Amino acid sequence: MLYFIGIGLNDEKDISVKGLEVVKGADVVYLESYTSKLACSVEKLEEFYGQKIILADRELVEQKADETILKDAKTKNVAFLVIGDVFGATTHIELMMRAKKDGIKVKIIHNASILSAVGVVGLELYKYGKVTSIPFENKDVRAPVEVVLENQKNGLHSLVLLDLRPEQDKFMTINTALEFLVEKGLDSELSVVGCAGIGSDAPEIRFGKIKEIISAEFTKFPQCLIIPGKLHFMEEEALEFWKQ
Amino acid sequence: MLYFIGIGLNDEKDISVKGLEVVKGADVVYLESYTSKLACSVEKLEEFYGQKIILADRELVEQKADETILKDAKTKNVAFLVIGDVFGATTHIELMMRAKKDGIKVKIIHNASILSAVGVVGLELYKYGKVTSIPFENKDVRAPVEVVLENQKNGLHSLVLLDLRPEQDKFMTINTALEFLVEKGLDSELSVVGCAGIGSDAPEIRFGKIKEIISAEFTKFPQCLIIPGKLHFMEEEALEFWKQ
Repeated sequence: MLYFIGIGLNDEKDISVKGLEVVKGADVVYLESYTSKLACSVEKLEEFYGQKIILADRELVEQKADETILKDAKTKNVAFLVIGDVFGATTHIELMMRAKKDGIKVKIIHNASILSAVGVVGLELYKYGKVTSIPFENKDVRAPVEVVLENQKNGLHSLVLLDLRPEQDKFMTINTALEFLVEKGLDSELSVVGCAGIGSDAPEIRFGKIKEIISAEFTKFPQCLIIPGKLHFMEEEALEFWKQ
Repeated sequence: MLYFIGIGLNDEKDISVKGLEVVKGADVVYLESYTSKLACSVEKLEEFYGQKIILADRELVEQKADETILKDAKTKNVAFLVIGDVFGATTHIELMMRAKKDGIKVKIIHNASILSAVGVVGLELYKYGKVTSIPFENKDVRAPVEVVLENQKNGLHSLVLLDLRPEQDKFMTINTALEFLVEKGLDSELSVVGCAGIGSDAPEIRFGKIKEIISAEFTKFPQCLIIPGKLHFMEEEALEFWKQ
């Protein structure tokens, strides 16, 4: 059996009671370690779960799953832990499909995702358009600006995720991301919400024009951006709380 | 202090460890009871949490919060439980804003939302467009069809949520929803994914043309629909798993 278990956005206690029961009873526990990072250490997770954790990097999940995760799951109870919710990234859907093709039983235990956690900002979740992300290698990349402009045209909010390399402790900052967006043609007079540490006890949320937020200070990671679309008066009121 | 705590999508054990600790230590526990419903009873929640739960209907939250939730939160630790994640509905954002204006400290504990849990279907979460919903009173409603067509034009997937009245145990079915969409002009040759009981141990997911899924059997609730946009080959492959 292969359990896909979301472990939430911040620390060891964000796992659900159901997820924790499965992890405690599992024969093998993997943690996907390349698409996000918690605010606590892997040692802290191991201590709280009472289990040894095997870190699964991209190579292990995408190229060596046959000899590791999938092989184990044929005879044992395997917990595959994912930060946030389970299927935020294509790489996890692929692993589920490979497991199903191999006749392995799959169960899923969901958890919080940045996609709904940004609701805390006060913009209606139903009024977001396509999600976009800014990669570190972005010299020839213009897609994020195009997605934002298309969403704006349709009156929709844009969630912009920022690249990260958890294994190198490297996270793109809001400041860098805004410089990129302006350089690629986004108007620095546009309003933006900068978010850091969403899911933590004290998320950092700041609202202002791009030219203001571009030099604002954020200390937590990961960080992301929201470019508001057409605003309902209640959304306007909510954004006032985060004004610079 | 007012804690907004998401309790997930299915049963009493979907609450996070962090959320459970807060609920157990709270002086008063409210459960928002009008926007969704779990697969377990309120009694089951009370037993597992070791707390008496006050059901908060729309009137209490939107008109009587001053004399109840907000009044309590000024002097006590109040847990306000929301099914799914915390800010899926405008009504919760409004309550948070009122609390902040009253000078009440607010903390948020996130959980799984249908918005990311539909990732289980295998369609990329970043490629969804605007979310829409079908209300019970829909004689003059055409917005859901317009949203789906607009998303389709942009190659994006559409999540369609279906109305519910948890207090009357009344849930719109996929079948009724598809009849509505076809009546309002959606082509019955279009592909659709019907989802019931997402977040449960055995979600019901079926993929086919609208004219096929319109008579398919689904037994769990709540139910929702996904109209796929432009498909990547891996998404096509994923959908094959759910073929009728």
